[in-house]
Amino acid sequence: MAHTSAGSTTGPLAGVVVIDLTRVLAGPFCTMLLADLGARVIKVENPKGGDDSRAYGPFINGKSGYFIAQNRGKESIALDLKDAGDQAILHRLLRGADVLIENFRPGTMARLGFGPEALKQLYPRLIYASTSGFGQTGPFADRPAYDIIAQAMGGIMSITGHEGGPPTRVGASIGDLGAGLFTALGIVSALHHRHRSGEGIAVDVAMLDSQLALLENAIARYYSTGTSPKPLGARHPSIAPFEAYATKDGHVVIACGNDSLFRQFCVAVDRAFLADDPRFDTNTRRSEHVVALKETLESFLIQETTEYWLALLNRAGIPSAPINDVGQAIHHPQVQHRRVVLPVDDETVAPLAVAGSPIKFSGFETPEKRPAAPDLDQDRARILADFP
Amino acid sequence: MAHTSAGSTTGPLAGVVVIDLTRVLAGPFCTMLLADLGARVIKVENPKGGDDSRAYGPFINGKSGYFIAQNRGKESIALDLKDAGDQAILHRLLRGADVLIENFRPGTMARLGFGPEALKQLYPRLIYASTSGFGQTGPFADRPAYDIIAQAMGGIMSITGHEGGPPTRVGASIGDLGAGLFTALGIVSALHHRHRSGEGIAVDVAMLDSQLALLENAIARYYSTGTSPKPLGARHPSIAPFEAYATKDGHVVIACGNDSLFRQFCVAVDRAFLADDPRFDTNTRRSEHVVALKETLESFLIQETTEYWLALLNRAGIPSAPINDVGQAIHHPQVQHRRVVLPVDDETVAPLAVAGSPIKFSGFETPEKRPAAPDLDQDRARILADFP
Repeated sequence: MAHTSAGSTTGPLAGVVVIDLTRVLAGPFCTMLLADLGARVIKVENPKGGDDSRAYGPFINGKSGYFIAQNRGKESIALDLKDAGDQAILHRLLRGADVLIENFRPGTMARLGFGPEALKQLYPRLIYASTSGFGQTGPFADRPAYDIIAQAMGGIMSITGHEGGPPTRVGASIGDLGAGLFTALGIVSALHHRHRSGEGIAVDVAMLDSQLALLENAIARYYSTGTSPKPLGARHPSIAPFEAYATKDGHVVIACGNDSLFRQFCVAVDRAFLADDPRFDTNTRRSEHVVALKETLESFLIQETTEYWLALLNRAGIPSAPINDVGQAIHHPQVQHRRVVLPVDDETVAPLAVAGSPIKFSGFETPEKRPAAPDLDQDRARILADFP
Repeated sequence: MAHTSAGSTTGPLAGVVVIDLTRVLAGPFCTMLLADLGARVIKVENPKGGDDSRAYGPFINGKSGYFIAQNRGKESIALDLKDAGDQAILHRLLRGADVLIENFRPGTMARLGFGPEALKQLYPRLIYASTSGFGQTGPFADRPAYDIIAQAMGGIMSITGHEGGPPTRVGASIGDLGAGLFTALGIVSALHHRHRSGEGIAVDVAMLDSQLALLENAIARYYSTGTSPKPLGARHPSIAPFEAYATKDGHVVIACGNDSLFRQFCVAVDRAFLADDPRFDTNTRRSEHVVALKETLESFLIQETTEYWLALLNRAGIPSAPINDVGQAIHHPQVQHRRVVLPVDDETVAPLAVAGSPIKFSGFETPEKRPAAPDLDQDRARILADFP
């Protein structure tokens, strides 16, 4: 496609045009990833206020930091999808597009005349992506969902937190972000497929399905025992030591994924004898005696500060970490070096910074800033000129 | 590529050949996604026991459920990467490959003679993907990492759990899974790019960077206030109601993303007056009075069972959910309908099932089973025949 008058041209998806009808989080996170990869993303918003998330806090100088974080680097045009004139404009965009993405409830797009079957006739090369709470099929397809609905139904809340404690949601919206990531992977896979088949296919991703796909070894543990696993606090289910231990002034995370690392750790903390303790000499036995292991380690870790232990363990090559708060994580020298969190090119919200795609490519430099998020309908004139 | 004698041919990546040098979780999760998308994944393992995770529990009939979950549908060949003869075999594979992926510590591949610069000379179309704890560059590049190291350093542990409570790890290994997903997205984006440039590029993804990219609105909240956000239990930082509420026999999750939904909810629970309560009449005010809101809602939610409220709220179209345990999530009718969790085609571990990719494509049917995981070196003869 030739439409590159705006947006990034510095990524492997340069030249790809995405028409983005999504709102709030899962869809906008997906198209933000595509924009960071170089695609031109045209955000189509309802004329009455646009994306709901423009009204979500936190606000910085009157602008939604929530919205900016997911929509920087996109263009905006306001279209009323029930209006015939605006529908005609959407068709102009689709004629020049590679990808359409929407996150309405299943059936809404078909009622508007923009369902996947109808569009396939008109635009056989168009990739049609839908992301929704429960997917386009099945008994729950019509139900509404938000992040916490997917987190709760998908099992991750049942294994996060502390046994017997109150319910715990993963502190970031992994219900939305997971679906957004899988949708992006589906879209780019469909782009690859189109190079050989010439045909655009439809992509259907559900938030609930995506949560199951992230349950990891909890599924195997369920089948091996016939009972559902419980939350384990900060502990790993089958590796020890692999959790957070109390120090004089906080916690230190220590992870030894094999017996040799555990022995190195014991030497480093001047307690080589622990590696020969019959309760602790193999990972299996350490896992069986994980409570005793924690008590034993904390009996001396508590005597010094987190910083002391991190310095000592780092010298010995033992995987260890502080529990950083968000500010510490953002300002960590490695994160800064990698330009993972970058300022937005919008003076009115300085010093707001946003996370970008963490994917680095040879030949494509990570920028020092991310472009601003669009005001509602800001790019109308250029978009109409580019899609005659 | 013509090598399709094994592996799936039922996905958009059919025909793509991936040489997989990764171990344990982030890398194997990435290549499992690629296999589910149709790629042929050849797992190259060290002859002394293979992937470390073959020794990780839970075990089912002597086989590692952990390993099977991440490696079903791949082929295995054992190669000693320090042996000249085996290095020659790896070169045979690379001649016919589209993608190489590795998760050694940075520098290891170059020392073995398989660094990205060396391979670019030999195989200019090869996509070279690296996933690691901290990335290929920067002051922490050489440090070791496991999932909990990335979770702790990347900030997500600081916003998960309950304020003042003990440290809480996300119950699935999002430190690994996030990096695996971003790596897969980078690889497929590089495949798309190669169709037009003819050139294979290198992909570099870090677990730490990936955690920052999943912090979502916590980053904007940090910049808007100058202080790091705290863990909020099951609560959303800026939407209310959006958490888990106590019922007579457990909890019910209720999420109302806007004022109109909250009003519908109040009517459904026969307390329309709450929508006009000056503490609760807008989302902003409900967020300010979120503790009073929870007390008010729980005063009547506690009187009936979770099932009662789910039925009532579903009839009224209010987004609501139970907190499913892992077994309930797996056996949920929607999850079963969507074939997200599928049996493995290996009688020796029946009834073990695994999560597959949650991405559905038109024209590619989701299978009813997933292929078995390979024994170490199981596919050697066929692989050597296919890559002469």
